[in-house]
Amino acid sequence: MVQSVARAIEILRVLGSAARGAGVTEVAQRVGVAKPTAHALLRTLEAGQLVAQDSETGKYRLGPALLEFGNAYLETHELRVRSVAWAGGLANRTNEAVWVGALSGDHVLVLHHAFRPEGAVQIIEVGAVIPWHTCALGKAIVAHLPDADRAALLRGPLAALTGATRTEPAALVQDLERVRAAGYAVEEGEAAIGDAGIAAPVFDHTGEVVGAIGAVGPVERLLAGQTRDGLAVAVRETARHLSRDLGAGRAATRRWVAAAS
Amino acid sequence: MVQSVARAIEILRVLGSAARGAGVTEVAQRVGVAKPTAHALLRTLEAGQLVAQDSETGKYRLGPALLEFGNAYLETHELRVRSVAWAGGLANRTNEAVWVGALSGDHVLVLHHAFRPEGAVQIIEVGAVIPWHTCALGKAIVAHLPDADRAALLRGPLAALTGATRTEPAALVQDLERVRAAGYAVEEGEAAIGDAGIAAPVFDHTGEVVGAIGAVGPVERLLAGQTRDGLAVAVRETARHLSRDLGAGRAATRRWVAAAS
Repeated sequence: MVQSVARAIEILRVLGSAARGAGVTEVAQRVGVAKPTAHALLRTLEAGQLVAQDSETGKYRLGPALLEFGNAYLETHELRVRSVAWAGGLANRTNEAVWVGALSGDHVLVLHHAFRPEGAVQIIEVGAVIPWHTCALGKAIVAHLPDADRAALLRGPLAALTGATRTEPAALVQDLERVRAAGYAVEEGEAAIGDAGIAAPVFDHTGEVVGAIGAVGPVERLLAGQTRDGLAVAVRETARHLSRDLGAGRAATRRWVAAAS
Repeated sequence: MVQSVARAIEILRVLGSAARGAGVTEVAQRVGVAKPTAHALLRTLEAGQLVAQDSETGKYRLGPALLEFGNAYLETHELRVRSVAWAGGLANRTNEAVWVGALSGDHVLVLHHAFRPEGAVQIIEVGAVIPWHTCALGKAIVAHLPDADRAALLRGPLAALTGATRTEPAALVQDLERVRAAGYAVEEGEAAIGDAGIAAPVFDHTGEVVGAIGAVGPVERLLAGQTRDGLAVAVRETARHLSRDLGAGRAATRRWVAAAS
């Protein structure tokens, strides 16, 4: 490990969580380094445009190069690239917004967002991160992880975001068993009050789960009796097509399709 | 400057331009360091999820933390945050896609993209970078920069992206004068064949130009006689409203509104 690089990354995390930016003293304190060290690191990050200094307040905040790198990450991410057309098709078929996500640590990272065709103003959520146990995407992925990986995630921490968030490992184990049996995961106000999601896992040519795709929207619309069943079928079919597109064999997709039928 | 951090940033640039990732030998070569040094830097970046290693090929590519940082950059960028509603309004009023951009070095960075309301499948372009002299957003911004900054950008390099790209400083100086006189900039196939744009500058409370907002679309639709004039009026008005929203005084916006009337 290169200590100065690890500290530079820590500075990016500090600035990413400081809505109004942070001065060099605050950065030094939070990263645990001397002020001249923090200053040298900030200057180097600024030269690469990973950090920008406000000319009026002197405070530092994240810089534009991070947006460019984030975009380059998306453009080279195979699940994201392959999912664009499938997500658009699912949004049109269901008239709901569609998200594609992958696991990053213990969070789901939203890689693509197809807008609801008939929706009003919508904010693009690409780049958003959501604790895995609070969303349908996360549960669809974790249900199909190798046992050891799933067990590690179930050890937590499992924070409650709403009163409906499941934070007991035993309750989540049951939930994940239902996901494997049904071929799709459901979220009902577990990440945000009133928000629902229905998602299914996506596999690649190695047969491993690499992400999930699903519809998101208000509980009242998504989870109403008949709508819910129709959505589940559409989401599961799209996930299967996307998996085949990524090279997954029949066996990998049959595993859970068979369980669901 | 902290050399190891500068090298780590250089590694991100190398990986950002390598669609299929790069091995440690290639990274070492392109950054100009010994292989063990490149390996230690890559490992540190990987620990922070700024880089990910492909389990099959062993090659390194950009990692998911960059998308999170890019998203955090957007959420704290005042022009982006304030522009979302204005861009949506302009897209609805004109039935065209709308981009909001800021200058980053000699490129325009797209910070927000409001889809064309009646459009077919559209790819979100947030995070895209475009050479300033090839797009309406860039010309709208650079026309209103302080003289010294504008002169530096006019010294180039000014690469040709299409046969219509202006690469002669003298031609661009004339173009920027027209932008200041009209209150908006036009791009006609200068960044990509067939693509057009009409954009106006956005100012903040200091009176400095901080970005631009504009419509983008095919030359045939955007630049047809009457459409073009109507678009120019709508774009200029929206840019003025957005500037006022960012705290720009009447004087800052009057400067170019007066010139345009």
